[in-house]
Amino acid sequence: MSVLIVGSTALDSIKTPKAENPKLLGGSASHAAVAASFFAPVKLVGVVGEDFPKPYIQLYRKHKINLDGLQLKEGKTFHWSGEYEVNMDNRQTLLTELGVFETFTPHLPESHKKSPFVLLANIAPSLQAHVLDQMQRPKFIIADTMDLWLNIALKDLLALIGRVDAFVLNESEAHQLTERSNILHAAREIHKLGPKYVIIKKGHNGAFLSSPRGLFVCPAYPLEDVVDPTGAGDAFVGAIMGYLATRSGPIEKNLRRAMVYGSVVASFCCEGFGLTRLTKLKRPEIDKRVAELEKLVRF
Amino acid sequence: MSVLIVGSTALDSIKTPKAENPKLLGGSASHAAVAASFFAPVKLVGVVGEDFPKPYIQLYRKHKINLDGLQLKEGKTFHWSGEYEVNMDNRQTLLTELGVFETFTPHLPESHKKSPFVLLANIAPSLQAHVLDQMQRPKFIIADTMDLWLNIALKDLLALIGRVDAFVLNESEAHQLTERSNILHAAREIHKLGPKYVIIKKGHNGAFLSSPRGLFVCPAYPLEDVVDPTGAGDAFVGAIMGYLATRSGPIEKNLRRAMVYGSVVASFCCEGFGLTRLTKLKRPEIDKRVAELEKLVRF
Repeated sequence: MSVLIVGSTALDSIKTPKAENPKLLGGSASHAAVAASFFAPVKLVGVVGEDFPKPYIQLYRKHKINLDGLQLKEGKTFHWSGEYEVNMDNRQTLLTELGVFETFTPHLPESHKKSPFVLLANIAPSLQAHVLDQMQRPKFIIADTMDLWLNIALKDLLALIGRVDAFVLNESEAHQLTERSNILHAAREIHKLGPKYVIIKKGHNGAFLSSPRGLFVCPAYPLEDVVDPTGAGDAFVGAIMGYLATRSGPIEKNLRRAMVYGSVVASFCCEGFGLTRLTKLKRPEIDKRVAELEKLVRF
Repeated sequence: MSVLIVGSTALDSIKTPKAENPKLLGGSASHAAVAASFFAPVKLVGVVGEDFPKPYIQLYRKHKINLDGLQLKEGKTFHWSGEYEVNMDNRQTLLTELGVFETFTPHLPESHKKSPFVLLANIAPSLQAHVLDQMQRPKFIIADTMDLWLNIALKDLLALIGRVDAFVLNESEAHQLTERSNILHAAREIHKLGPKYVIIKKGHNGAFLSSPRGLFVCPAYPLEDVVDPTGAGDAFVGAIMGYLATRSGPIEKNLRRAMVYGSVVASFCCEGFGLTRLTKLKRPEIDKRVAELEKLVRF
């Protein structure tokens, strides 16, 4: 089955201690869509400006991503610029130019409204909600977020959380949202807001799932060389959703393995600037790394 | 087979955001010895002063810990005092009174010199080395350390690392020792110093093993309530060593499961002040939590 992905489509200028790359293809939806495309057909919903490079459109198409929901607007594409510290864990935003994103309202083409799997990648929670407003009840809805929305749109975010099956956020966001320093307590508080599944991202320490069937500690693939972690969290949820869309049976049965696939695709994402590594990736490489992760946690 | 454990035997005064407990039984060797005692007979080597409370001696004995190598000296027992921040990850040392520890030299009774399993729990690396000088070649030597020795006794520590089979340290110490921010690179540098096995402790994110057979990501048991993490790292290595001493076959074959046992005993350690939870623990509780951890990482 296909996956509908809505989120940001952007140009990212990224600086790390080793290199600097201007105006790469970026945005939460771009990373998630390419990650999901290794598993299932993807429909992308987003907006780009007139400056959006044609090769990036071709890159989406190479991954067989349906662009019927990608709006082309007068003005400039959303541009984000950031710089990583030596440890590659901390980063600083240098610049945010919203461009056409400032007035973006996602409109779903008719063909998109019955999509069974919906990934609300990181954008303003009001826009995430607006997508759900246009849809018939999907089989599975997952939403990601970022600290910005906790700070400036908490009310919208809380309303959205109540409408999704799975909610994804990182560890510090989980603590901020719930005011609980313990991860089990934080997950419990988030369940109370609505979601059946709570997924907490922990960067190079993997991820954590709280679900009706219990907890799952998802390992991260240990990397020799982190080139650029931008978009790894988006690739993680994208691959989770892509994998789930290809599996039969209840979500609960497949979600753990989906997270491991997500973790592996995220690891590849970190091995190149922007999407450069993911766009060269082949499915057998993903399966090989999943098998390695299985060995890595076996005792 | 029995386990020889050398390290500090101390009185710990511990303050957390929720409570304050003066002069608990503490020290790296105390935590490690009690943790190991759930699996194998333990011989403890350390020093205490005249103020060392009799109930603490009885507590060692309750765990069938051989005290032939515990010196009783004129003066005061080593006293450490620390305070934890709200997140329980960061702590501040308030006071260190070395007492009889200042002039401590570990002397091994004849009966101890042929011990097959030797755990050099955290003390000055020169003292750890002095224990090895007195021994016939043990089957397996594991050494733990702390940042203090990296700062004030690096030369001694490097010499010691070259003499052990397994070296244990926490993540920030691994980065400091090797000047490598990547954990795989750091482990590789430590292997170059001698040890066949490198174990990197990551607190509530578990632990990491680098060995000839490959890598292992060891999960931490998710805790509802961390009361006091003091000694958790010592309990971790103590349980590893105790478990290994009971297993036949090569170390490599048993080390992963040993680490999971270590992780579980460390989790119990965190559930009470000082050793209060561990000294009430029963073996079936440990096995139950190991079985839970197996489910927690299965996918």
